[in-house]
Amino acid sequence: MKLGTVETDGTQRVAVALDDTRAVLLAPGTTVAGLIGDWAAARPAVELAAQAGAEEAVPVAGLSWLPPLPRPGKIICVALNNSANASRIISGPAHPATFGKPASSLLGHGRTIRLKKEFGRVHPEPELAVVIGTPPSNRGPSNKGGADIPLPEAMDHVFGYTIINDLTSPDMRTEDTFHYRAIHPAKDARPGEQGDGIEYVDTWVSYSGRYKGTDGFGPIGPWIVTADEIPDPHDLTVTCVHQGRVITEDSTANLTHKVAGVISFLSGYQTLEPGDIIAMGTALKASASGGAAVQNVNLTRLGGPIEVSISGIGTLSNPVEVP
Amino acid sequence: MKLGTVETDGTQRVAVALDDTRAVLLAPGTTVAGLIGDWAAARPAVELAAQAGAEEAVPVAGLSWLPPLPRPGKIICVALNNSANASRIISGPAHPATFGKPASSLLGHGRTIRLKKEFGRVHPEPELAVVIGTPPSNRGPSNKGGADIPLPEAMDHVFGYTIINDLTSPDMRTEDTFHYRAIHPAKDARPGEQGDGIEYVDTWVSYSGRYKGTDGFGPIGPWIVTADEIPDPHDLTVTCVHQGRVITEDSTANLTHKVAGVISFLSGYQTLEPGDIIAMGTALKASASGGAAVQNVNLTRLGGPIEVSISGIGTLSNPVEVP
Repeated sequence: MKLGTVETDGTQRVAVALDDTRAVLLAPGTTVAGLIGDWAAARPAVELAAQAGAEEAVPVAGLSWLPPLPRPGKIICVALNNSANASRIISGPAHPATFGKPASSLLGHGRTIRLKKEFGRVHPEPELAVVIGTPPSNRGPSNKGGADIPLPEAMDHVFGYTIINDLTSPDMRTEDTFHYRAIHPAKDARPGEQGDGIEYVDTWVSYSGRYKGTDGFGPIGPWIVTADEIPDPHDLTVTCVHQGRVITEDSTANLTHKVAGVISFLSGYQTLEPGDIIAMGTALKASASGGAAVQNVNLTRLGGPIEVSISGIGTLSNPVEVP
Repeated sequence: MKLGTVETDGTQRVAVALDDTRAVLLAPGTTVAGLIGDWAAARPAVELAAQAGAEEAVPVAGLSWLPPLPRPGKIICVALNNSANASRIISGPAHPATFGKPASSLLGHGRTIRLKKEFGRVHPEPELAVVIGTPPSNRGPSNKGGADIPLPEAMDHVFGYTIINDLTSPDMRTEDTFHYRAIHPAKDARPGEQGDGIEYVDTWVSYSGRYKGTDGFGPIGPWIVTADEIPDPHDLTVTCVHQGRVITEDSTANLTHKVAGVISFLSGYQTLEPGDIIAMGTALKASASGGAAVQNVNLTRLGGPIEVSISGIGTLSNPVEVP
């Protein structure tokens, strides 16, 4: 099933997409977050409502889409997670490394990405996003909800999948990088005891608040496709189209860290809650028919529209406005 | 007024602290987020309820404190924002640089920070936190809510202040830093036109998802003090005490970027919404009576309790458990 959120007359409504062109709106009061909270119980009623409303379905193109989850608890993004990154990494962790985006950076399908000149270069990053669901509660005393999820149980925590365009400003990344002498405890402290001596370690630290979290830097949607419709999340084609030109065409098979491994690893540090979103990393393989590096698609200079499609999910498209 | 959130019998209640030792609980259904949404209208009723309940006030120490805002929209943390950092910065931005923490990392006053051995070194970072309020709506057509806030109006957006302990794992920071060859557009592209050529730029990028966002890395509270009680947020003493020993004693006068400037600057990129939290940066001056660098207080090895006090706000104290 495809579940999104739309706005009609200032009210948020759940939209069930029947296909890529028609959707049924559920009665006000129901939210996607609420459905995720108790999906097993809610699903039959949603299916009935979608069937009953099919004759009065409305065109997808005429709806005002919000992010499918307008205010997720957290949005975790996996960095440098494509096999094409490997040859460029001089050193880095063997496990998933992540950063966050705030809910205020999200933007629904069809909504305008408004860029300011001071954002510098801004490029698209097409990505598969995983939506965390409510874990089964019948696993007995070993069940810790969304914390410390064992690898074999990881996929039970997936509610569904959507599309995210992880907009990035490499200029703001450069600006917000410090080269500084970090304070570390002195290495000559006696073994087993830690003194108050310090030493300085030459360090580069980059802060992602602006370059990943600026308003409009998270187009997402149009909807969430429930996990039952995506038997293998690592057999999906991800396409990025800028102004009608296919830029990248990649497969989720090329993700270095897979969905199950990412969920299990991250849950050892951050409890994964229903409605949390994990962006799996950029699909960046240039299309065979003359694509470009996504880094060359400077939306601040070139404008939009910018589109990301994932097979089995749909197409997320956004115009761009630069004053 | 001092507003916090406590849990009684599985229900969240707003607690109004009368002083550092006694609090009045409001009826269930009221939330701190709700009060912030319409504080001008709600304040008189809250004051009346607190007065009426004063005789039945309960001891602060006996309450089960949650984060004052259990699920803020975003938590923005300003990096390296103390005058004591200046001599250690070899290069960096002249404006505030930020990272985010997820709501799931927050922990109420008195709750146990549970650390795992694989978190590596974890040290405290005592900080003043600003809570964003509902901006005045009577400024006419130039009012953009929490976006593009002019500097002279910035303080109107402050609802109040609280205390945050921005726990940090420098070991995870080192682990999650990539040294890689970033893709940039080729510099030899013709002027005014951007080709598809790329070049590689040697880059260090660190990702803060784990080292700043792990569960328990955000003790916060015990409560929010409304802005009217803090006439000057840059005249506050910040003290960090570990196992009874005063580690750091600093003043918010030493923050490089001040509250108004941070709000105005950030709002040009990220819309600041009521209930958002801005952690202003670490107070890190070692106390004259023999303090240590906070970086030497390795909670994973030494345990707790760890306390942060700010004059005019209160004391945030948390035990530490390492299995």
